[in-house]
Order: sequence, then structure tokens, then C-alpha cells
Amino acid sequence: MDEVLPGGFLTLSDLEETAKARSSTEVWAYVEGGAGEELTASDNHAAFRHWSLLPRHLAGIRSVDLRTSLLGHPVSSPIFVAPTAYQGLVHSTGEVGTAKAASAARTLAMFSTLSSFSMEEIAAAAPTGPRWFQLYLQPDFAATRELVGRAERSGYSGIVLTVDAPVLGSRDRQTRDGVAIRSPVPLGNGPHIVPPARIPQSDGEVFVFPPDATATWEILERLGGITRLPLVVKGILTADDARRAVAAGARAVVVSNHGGRQLDRAVASVDALAAVVAAVGSQAEVYMDGGIRRGSDILVALALGARGVGVGRPVLWALAAGGERGVSRLLSLLQTELAVTMMLTGRRNLAEVGPELLRDRSA
Amino acid sequence: MDEVLPGGFLTLSDLEETAKARSSTEVWAYVEGGAGEELTASDNHAAFRHWSLLPRHLAGIRSVDLRTSLLGHPVSSPIFVAPTAYQGLVHSTGEVGTAKAASAARTLAMFSTLSSFSMEEIAAAAPTGPRWFQLYLQPDFAATRELVGRAERSGYSGIVLTVDAPVLGSRDRQTRDGVAIRSPVPLGNGPHIVPPARIPQSDGEVFVFPPDATATWEILERLGGITRLPLVVKGILTADDARRAVAAGARAVVVSNHGGRQLDRAVASVDALAAVVAAVGSQAEVYMDGGIRRGSDILVALALGARGVGVGRPVLWALAAGGERGVSRLLSLLQTELAVTMMLTGRRNLAEVGPELLRDRSA
Amino acid sequence: MDEVLPGGFLTLSDLEETAKARSSTEVWAYVEGGAGEELTASDNHAAFRHWSLLPRHLAGIRSVDLRTSLLGHPVSSPIFVAPTAYQGLVHSTGEVGTAKAASAARTLAMFSTLSSFSMEEIAAAAPTGPRWFQLYLQPDFAATRELVGRAERSGYSGIVLTVDAPVLGSRDRQTRDGVAIRSPVPLGNGPHIVPPARIPQSDGEVFVFPPDATATWEILERLGGITRLPLVVKGILTADDARRAVAAGARAVVVSNHGGRQLDRAVASVDALAAVVAAVGSQAEVYMDGGIRRGSDILVALALGARGVGVGRPVLWALAAGGERGVSRLLSLLQTELAVTMMLTGRRNLAEVGPELLRDRSA
Amino acid sequence: MDEVLPGGFLTLSDLEETAKARSSTEVWAYVEGGAGEELTASDNHAAFRHWSLLPRHLAGIRSVDLRTSLLGHPVSSPIFVAPTAYQGLVHSTGEVGTAKAASAARTLAMFSTLSSFSMEEIAAAAPTGPRWFQLYLQPDFAATRELVGRAERSGYSGIVLTVDAPVLGSRDRQTRDGVAIRSPVPLGNGPHIVPPARIPQSDGEVFVFPPDATATWEILERLGGITRLPLVVKGILTADDARRAVAAGARAVVVSNHGGRQLDRAVASVDALAAVVAAVGSQAEVYMDGGIRRGSDILVALALGARGVGVGRPVLWALAAGGERGVSRLLSLLQTELAVTMMLTGRRNLAEVGPELLRDRSA
Repeated sequence: MDEVLPGGFLTLSDLEETAKARSSTEVWAYVEGGAGEELTASDNHAAFRHWSLLPRHLAGIRSVDLRTSLLGHPVSSPIFVAPTAYQGLVHSTGEVGTAKAASAARTLAMFSTLSSFSMEEIAAAAPTGPRWFQLYLQPDFAATRELVGRAERSGYSGIVLTVDAPVLGSRDRQTRDGVAIRSPVPLGNGPHIVPPARIPQSDGEVFVFPPDATATWEILERLGGITRLPLVVKGILTADDARRAVAAGARAVVVSNHGGRQLDRAVASVDALAAVVAAVGSQAEVYMDGGIRRGSDILVALALGARGVGVGRPVLWALAAGGERGVSRLLSLLQTELAVTMMLTGRRNLAEVGPELLRDRSA
Repeated sequence: MDEVLPGGFLTLSDLEETAKARSSTEVWAYVEGGAGEELTASDNHAAFRHWSLLPRHLAGIRSVDLRTSLLGHPVSSPIFVAPTAYQGLVHSTGEVGTAKAASAARTLAMFSTLSSFSMEEIAAAAPTGPRWFQLYLQPDFAATRELVGRAERSGYSGIVLTVDAPVLGSRDRQTRDGVAIRSPVPLGNGPHIVPPARIPQSDGEVFVFPPDATATWEILERLGGITRLPLVVKGILTADDARRAVAAGARAVVVSNHGGRQLDRAVASVDALAAVVAAVGSQAEVYMDGGIRRGSDILVALALGARGVGVGRPVLWALAAGGERGVSRLLSLLQTELAVTMMLTGRRNLAEVGPELLRDRSA
Repeated sequence: MDEVLPGGFLTLSDLEETAKARSSTEVWAYVEGGAGEELTASDNHAAFRHWSLLPRHLAGIRSVDLRTSLLGHPVSSPIFVAPTAYQGLVHSTGEVGTAKAASAARTLAMFSTLSSFSMEEIAAAAPTGPRWFQLYLQPDFAATRELVGRAERSGYSGIVLTVDAPVLGSRDRQTRDGVAIRSPVPLGNGPHIVPPARIPQSDGEVFVFPPDATATWEILERLGGITRLPLVVKGILTADDARRAVAAGARAVVVSNHGGRQLDRAVASVDALAAVVAAVGSQAEVYMDGGIRRGSDILVALALGARGVGVGRPVLWALAAGGERGVSRLLSLLQTELAVTMMLTGRRNLAEVGPELLRDRSA
Repeated sequence: MDEVLPGGFLTLSDLEETAKARSSTEVWAYVEGGAGEELTASDNHAAFRHWSLLPRHLAGIRSVDLRTSLLGHPVSSPIFVAPTAYQGLVHSTGEVGTAKAASAARTLAMFSTLSSFSMEEIAAAAPTGPRWFQLYLQPDFAATRELVGRAERSGYSGIVLTVDAPVLGSRDRQTRDGVAIRSPVPLGNGPHIVPPARIPQSDGEVFVFPPDATATWEILERLGGITRLPLVVKGILTADDARRAVAAGARAVVVSNHGGRQLDRAVASVDALAAVVAAVGSQAEVYMDGGIRRGSDILVALALGARGVGVGRPVLWALAAGGERGVSRLLSLLQTELAVTMMLTGRRNLAEVGPELLRDRSA
């Protein structure tokens, strides 16, 4: 399957197209589907159209340096691999391929609790990382503690707590097209792992949800008590939640709506970004994911104050299209596009990127 | 006709699609058609796109409680069945099916003066209700009084006066496609019932309309004199009319434009809601209907201050698609979607829903 | 050609469709074509979408009275027939049919200098009018004086000076499709009439235009010196021009962009209306044309302050579709739609129509 | 190829259509392609839709005079030929045809460093000009100096330094469709000319770009030291860069985003214009290019303060469609459209064109 020359992919759309051709309807419903009418899933990218770029010329640049650090980890660029579940569904190498590609690119990668390979296998495939573990709270805290402990022991350097999935969103496309995923890959981290529940149960007048939904912000302090790893909160869309996360000990937050897979009609990530940066940007690192398809999207997010910018669905496309080499190509494409965009706007490094780059197209 | 498994309907669009397949062109023109160019009919749903949702996470929720009361009647959720005429046209069970499904779901249902079954038959089919009677003023008040009296005697617990139909709107699609409805069901409440007139009569320089159009807000006081039931006014789109309604004795108002079937170019219901809530929300209950297709639409309306949210056309879809079971499925779908949406926005009950949930997408 | 039952036309779109089917490509290019990319031609109607209507209910109305007066002439409604040239191209009865239909409807009609029948024939066909003469300035004033004199003698009661056609606009569609109009009807007012010139002549570095373009606002005073008829200026789009027109003696102005046939990218008529009303509404009557397709469009224009609302292209559709009976149907359709719309918004006459009816949809 | 009668082209769209029919896929990708998703390439024209025109009538105009001067050179109109590379690709006469047509029309033309004919051949073909030389900085200054010297000696009267191409943009369409341009024309100015580099090189963590990208605004002073010709800076999109250019000696700036071929998501030229005029309009001449397709586009740009308005892609269309005669037709079409538009807005010369002509359509 890897015989495709990654160099043949010019843009992320090419990866998407090849991925679609290689995927069954069921798998594609998983990859592309969002919640409900997919308003948020499509807004995530469309909302970047609110912004134009204002270049600065003759800036005397001979090179562009994309390097930065994410919670102290030096990385080759602010682009990171956002966590997505079940990567084995789209390509046999699954998270192992993703990890090798990301590590080779010196890019931060986050891996899901619901990975198809175990976190130890992923770590072994690409020991140098950097690599963070995405955590879904488990129904009982002992199981959560076990996951965190394994992550720490196998060399993950951050815990990314997803807070926007107390229950699974209404994934209509998945339900419609994906009911019969014929050969589901097992959960790599063990058969005892509990994913976000799919269906709320109605108990008389009241809908009862899975127990892990009962968590409050105190869970962060509790997690802080069982690990020395920095805690990151993923799924933040408001200034208030950002402040709560940081007050409870988060070292970074990821502005995200889960790729539009959870709450349909949730604000687009890029539309939520500025308020979160204004609220906590001086105390914590702020990242975002959702809708990134081009280097210029990344530059917009950086200009609005993001320190890191994640890609989720595109990693699934890349994996499906070419396995590890597909992911390598994805990362290299985005880094090159970002570098060219910075060159053309006269920015030689990330410190030179700020809001003066942006013009509101509706103004 | 009821052999379809309601569980096969994942969304309201599925109900619509099945309903369309099962309906004649004539009936479908009645179900879907709006007034004129159907600007308002389509705006009603489109206007929800003005708003995004801002979730609150880690809110420590294990369950979501949708219960509320509408004019003191406890209901399982704020969702109610808005009145629509001629339900026998779309399914043989007509309003009887609707009443059974709504009552089983402990949902408020409003039934039209123009029902296909008599109000007594409807009441007998589902005695526990709650159930309100929608009133079209009759040309002479004695006939109006008779209708109200029958409603009171047969256990309806509210009178909903529709004020936006002094004359029938220009239903071009209905006229075009629906002229020859072949087997019109008779009016359940008796052959003497006078529907809103279809065609204005031109008398020289002046257009003369049906006599019931002469009513003023005093009619509310007059109605108050002939019934102990609370009066609700349906069709309000401005703060001024809301104030007039409440001043004249209305206990609740329904922000509505009759599903875009009356005044084309009328403001979308959700766009009119906030001003009405601001004007009378402290003195009366404010409901709305028009354009509700998803749980997230309902949450937007609630966040703008609606206490109840009605569905009209979707009930016709549900009836056409599956009779009583179709309506049950509709109500269950919307309640589940609303519950999931509340869970994902961190609201455990309706008291926690407010305008801080909303972000204006155009801002 | 008149065998079509006018009652078969439910909306103006029906008239348009039938007209198109009955017209040659060349004639249709004349009827529908606008200037350039037809931005203004399409904006004229689209701009009405900026507004929603806010009804007032239970207003105690039994009848709607559309009567008004235009410069003192009592008319059955504010709807008037805007002048369009060459009506003989679209139907053999041409302006004679239009005049009969308008007069029978007690509707003001304006007839073009470029009519296919002579102004005297038009007057003889429908003596009671009211009827105004649209004037294109002729290259020498004697010819203009002759036209005005004929109009006065044959019973026209107003002179409508078109000011937006010092040169013919770039009618690309007409040029493309209409070059070979095979049987051009002659100019009814005589072969010596000079239409707005089609092509500017370049004289070295400078483009030289037809001599009538040299007119200034003094022309109004000059016209006032040769006729006792009131002067109306058509083609106003700004407050400044409106003030100049009124200062120079105009008793009324028509906010118009010539149906988008002259200056492409000109502001839509309805977008220009409020500023003109604010500038001169207390001193002169303000009318508008451009984009009217529905009764609700008319109500929007009236609410913005127009005293009269004209239809141009729709009259050509109506003529092409059914001759005189087509125009009668058009006028009756629009009057009925306006009456229904007023009933549904709770306005019993034009004095009750004001800006409180409107809501800006973008706000 | 020139047998087509230029008079058959009514609009620029006709030229585009014919050009497309006559071009190979590869050449067309070069002509039409923009950077990335071509957001900016399409915004350039679409952004003119932000503006409507407000005419002034009865202005007493018999002629329209489009003459102006650009840096002291009298020209027949403000329209100029913007520089585009490789004109020999689209038609055998290449820049020679363009030069003849422009000179015959007494229109300023700018010729690219990357012309298919040598600048001397271009000059010889149309000695009277006016004609400016577009400069791409060469890797070493001696080569730059040689180019400037040749331009000066062969009668070019201005040097237009392009500052928005320190590296070539991501021309995805060109890469996709145009890889195999089969008979590339040689660079007319000599095989030693270095175009903007196509691919950034990644050196470890850092992207290294071509040496000419190292230039700063001091380059303008350096150029001023080697030529007596006035310097113009092309590619300005912000007030800040405009001020830097003028401070460094530029006599004029061209607001431009390279036709959307360099930085995708860059602000549309017409959206950037007003701020540049406000910043430097009193000290330097401000021109613009990007998205001009109609005379009314030109009038909008002039009303926003542009002194000259350039066309780039349309010149390639015109060349491809009809060689020199195609370009003549293009220039004549635009001049006529501009003249008619000015006549219809009541402006007799460019001094009468100002911002009062414009109305913001979104307001």
C-alpha cells in the first residue's frame, strides 16, 4: 500500500483524495464524519476565511526558522499530531507509523487512549518522541491511574486530558455508514479500556450518562497527584474554561472542538482562539486544532496567539494514503507551506508572528 | 403503513425523506409549502446559523434533566407539539396518533381548530394530556364560544389563540401542486367550522377580508370572560405585540410566524425571540416554534429565553412516516439530541441554560 | 396569443416564464438584459433580502385600502407602470395594451419617448389615464419642446425626465443575443426621435458623447418654462441629486437605476431609497422602481418612504405573456399580494405603513 | 492566429474564453493559476463587490477625458499593462505584440525581467513607449546593475521593483497541470537571468531561501545610486510597507498581490488600497493591479485613490486570443467601458473622481 510516492502529494487535498479511494465507506465515515449536521466540522476550516494576511516585504530574510518548544520540548515546528483514535482502522501500521514519522520530523505527537497499538508499542517504535498521552477518564480512577502510570513509565512526556467527550456526540454519518465496520481493530491499550459512551440512557424523565462524566475540574488536581508529567487540557472553547483549567493546574490548553465530532454547532476552533489566549496566554501555553489544511491556516492560528497547531483528520488521511511515509509527507508539506508563507509575509521565526499579520475580511 | 421501524430514523431528515416518499404531490405541497417565495419558511431554520454554542466542560454532570412546566403543567421536556391542521391528510391516524404519542412522552401537544378528528376524539384517545386547544376565531362569537366550551369540557387545559392568520397567506406551492387534493378529510370539529379565508375579495378600491379579521386585542378579554382556561397567543413577532397580548391577559405567547405559511418575509422566529423575551419574559411564559430540526436548535432557543419550543412540520413528517410511532420517535429523537447537547455543553437542567451559551457567528 | 387565461398566472415568475417561452432570443435579450455583468440588475431584487417584516396583529382590520394619490392624481394603489421602450417588440398591442390595462386598473402608467405606438395613439386607447410622459432630451431643444407639447395636448398629466441615460449603458447581453432583431418596430413618436446613443465616439484622447448629455439641472427650469405639467425626475440614486432635482423644480423623483440597464454596479434602488426620502421627502414625492417582484417587496419600499412603486420589466413579461390581459393580471396580482401583505402586517391603509415595519436582517 | 476580428470581443470574458480555447492545459495553468487554494486570486475580483457606485446626473458633460500622467509621463488613460512573465508562452509575438499595442494606445506598459523577448527587442518594437522595466533582484548586485543599465540605455523610463517574490509562491495548479510545458521559450533577457526560486531548501531545522530574499529597504537606495530612473515598488499591501518604500526613495507604489500568485490568503488588492493611499498618497503616486475585469472596477479603484490601474492576466488572455490586436482590443474595451462608466456617473475627467462615488454594500 505504501508504493505510492509521497512526493506525488502536493497538498493535503491530494492525501484526502487518495485516502478516500483506499478506504471502505465504513472507515471513511469514521474518518470524515462529524457530529449532527457537521456544521462545526465544516466551520472549523471555513472560519479561517474571516482572515486575510498582511505581508511585510524586503524584510531581509534568508531563512525561516520554525523551531519552537512545547512545554519545554524542543520541536522542529509548532505543528503537532493531534490525537485520533483507532489509527489501525485506516492503515495497518496505525499509530506505529504515525509515531515513526512524527519522531523523524522532530514533531510532537499525541496518542489516544483508544489507540490501535498499545502505548508501549508506540513508544518502542519511536523512542525519541516527543510524545504525549491523550487520556479519556475511565469509569473508576484506578483504571485512569493505571493508564497514566503506563504512559509515564513508557516515556510519554505529557498527559492530555480530553474534556469535551463526557458522552459520545451524535455521529450520524458514522451510524449511517459505519454500523458494520467489519474487522474492528482491538484497543491497543487493552480490552478493559472504556471509550466515551455512545448512547445516553433515559431513566424515566432523566438522561443518565456514563460515570466518567461526573468529573469536575478537581480531577486535574487529582491527576497532578499521581504523575509528575505536565497536564494539558484539550477541548477548551471559552475563556472561562481556560481559566478553570489553568487554575486547576493545566500547563497548557488545546483550543479544540474534537474536529466537530462532539458538539455540533460548537464554535469553530479558530473563532474561539483569541479569547482563550487573552484569558490565559500569559500563564499557560495555548494550542489549537481543527480545520488546519494549509500553511496559511497555521500562520493565522499562530498570529492569533497559538503556540502549537495540531492536525487530526489529515493524519488519518496521510496514514490511509501512505502509512508512515504518508504522515512524513503530510508533516513535510505543512512545514514547507508554513515556511514559504512566513517568507512571503516577512517573518523569519515564530517570535515575529503576531496579530498585525491579520486583517478581518468582513471589516 | 406503520411497519417501518421507528428506530430506523436517525434524524428528522430521515423522517422528512420517508414522509415525502409516502405522500402524494398534493399532500406534500400542503406539508412543506410556505407562503410566497418561502423566504420565511427557509429562514426559520437558516437563522439558527447566526449562533454558535460555547460549552462548559468538566461540569460534574451524571445526568441531564429536561423536565419543566408549561403554565404549571409538568412536562418531560420543553419540546411541545405545535398545532398543525388536517393531520388526517398525512396519515389515517391523524391527531389521534399524535395525541397518543405526545401523551405517552408526557409532552404538551396543541391541536388545531382545523383538526381532522374532533377535539373530543383526540381527548378520548389520550386522556392524560397535557393538551391545549388552538383556536381560530370564528366569524361570529357564538361559534367561537362553542369551540372554547367544548375544549374546556373535553379536558383541554389551555386555549391558544392564533393571531397571524386573519386571512390565509399566499400559499403558492399549495395552489400550484395541491389544487386537486382528491380525498380531503372532513373537519373533525364539524362542517360549520370556518378556516382562515383563502382569497381576499376586492370591492372596488378596497380589499375586504373575512369578518374574524376585525378582532382587536379586546378579544382576549372577551375570551377570558367565557373560559377559566389560560390564554396563550400564538404568532407574536414583536415586543409591542407581546406587550399587548400580556396586557390583554395572555399567560403565555408563542413566537411564531406560522412556519412561514402566512406572511412571507416575516422575521425568522429565532430572530424575533430575544426582543419578545426582553419585553414580557418576566410576566409571561415565552415559547417559540419555527425551524427546529435538531436538539442544538432547541438549545439555542432556550438560551435566548424560550421556555417551550414547538415542532410543527416535523410532526407532519413523523405522522406521514410512521403514524403514532413516528411521532413517538420524533419526540424521543429530539429529547435525546437535546439531552446530549446539554451534556456536551455542561448543563444538567434547564435552569442552567442561558445566553452565555451563545456566540454570535457574525461578530 | 391572448388565449391564455390570465388567471393561470399565480405569480410574476409565471408571467416571466411564459414570456420567455413566447419570445425570441433577441427579444428576450432586450427584455431581461442589463448593463455589463448585470450586477445591478440582479441586486435590485436581491437587496430586498436585507429586510424582514415585523407584523402587528389583532389590528381590527376588515379591509385594506390601497388608494393613494400621485401628484394629486387619485390612483387605486401606489403601484405604477414604469416606462419601458419598444413595447411593440414583445407583443403586438404594445403600449396600447398596457395603457388599457393600467387605465382599467386606475393605475398610473408612464410611457416612454421610445414607445412603439405614438403617444396620441396610446392616449386615445385609454383616455382616462392617469398617464405621464417619459422624456428623453432630444439633441436640440425644439424637438424636446415638440414632444412635451404633444404630451400636454394629448392629455398626459406629468413629464418624467429620465436623467440616467446621457449615453446608452453597455448592454452586453443585448449586443450578444440581440444584434439581429429581425423586425424592429418603428418608433411610435416619429422617425425623427433620437434614442440615447449606443456607442461613445473616441476623438483622439477624449470620448465624445451625444449632445443631449450636456444638460444640467437648468434643463428642469427650461422645461418648466414650456409646460404647465408637473416635472418628475427619474433615475435619482443619491440625496444630493434629489436635492438638486427638487431645487430645480421637480415635484417628484423616481429612485431608479433604469432596471440595471445603464450603470452596472450602481446601487440597488431599494438601498438608495431611504437617503433620498430623508433628503427631499418633505418637499417632493418620492417613488422607486427596480426589483419589485412581490407584494412584500412593495411593502418594504413603502415602509422606507416611497409614495409610489413602479414595475418595468414585469410589464414587459405580462405583455409578452398575455397582452393587455397579461398586464391586467400583473396589476391585479401585485395589488392582491400587497393587500394580503398589509392585512397580515396589520395595516389598513398606506398611512399606517412606516419604517417600524422593517427589521434589518443583517443586524 | 490573428485572423479573429478583435471587434468580436465584447468583454474581457470573451478574451478569456478564446484564450482558454487556444491554450494548452499547461499554458493555461500558467496563465490562470494562483498560489495555493487561489483564495486571493479569486478575492481580487470578488472584493470589488463590496462597493456600489453612486452616480451624479445632469452633470453637463459632453465628453470624458481619461488622460492623466504617471510619474510625469502623459498617458491616454490610467490603465496600464502590469508586468507578466513569459508572454511568449501564450503567443508568438509575446512582449513585442504587447509593446506595440500599448504604445499605439499611448498606454504605459511594464515589462518583466522574465520577458520572452529581450528588453532591447521590446524597446525597438515600440520606441515611443512609455515603458517601464520590472526588476527581479538578482543573486548578485552586478547582475542587477547590468539589467538596470540595459533598461536605462534602451529607453525604459522607470524601474519597477517587485518585492513580493523573495521566493516563488506555492503554485499548485501550475505544478499539477504545467509540469510538462513542452516548448518553454527562453528568457529574452539572457540565460543568466535568475527567476524567483521555486523550492525552499530545508537545512536541518531551517528553511533556506534564495540569496536575493535577503534584501531590505536599503536596496532602494542602492538602486537609486545606479540609475537616474524613478523607482517604483510593486507588491505593497500595507500602510507600513508603503511608508518604508517612500522613505527609501520610491516615487510610486503598486498595491498588488502578484495576481494572487504568491501569498495565498493575502488581502485583496482593492481591500488594501485605501490604507496605502491614506499613508503615502500625498508623497507618492499609488497604483494598483489585481482583479480588474471591467471599467467599473477601474472606477472603484480610482475612487479609492489609485492614480493608475494595471491589468496583468487580461493581457495574457488578449495576447493568447489575438496577439497584438488582442491587446489593442483589450485596452480599447477597458477605456471605452471606463469612459461610459464615468459618463454615467457624471465625471468628465479623473480629477472629478473621488470616494463620494462609492457606497459600501455591506453597510
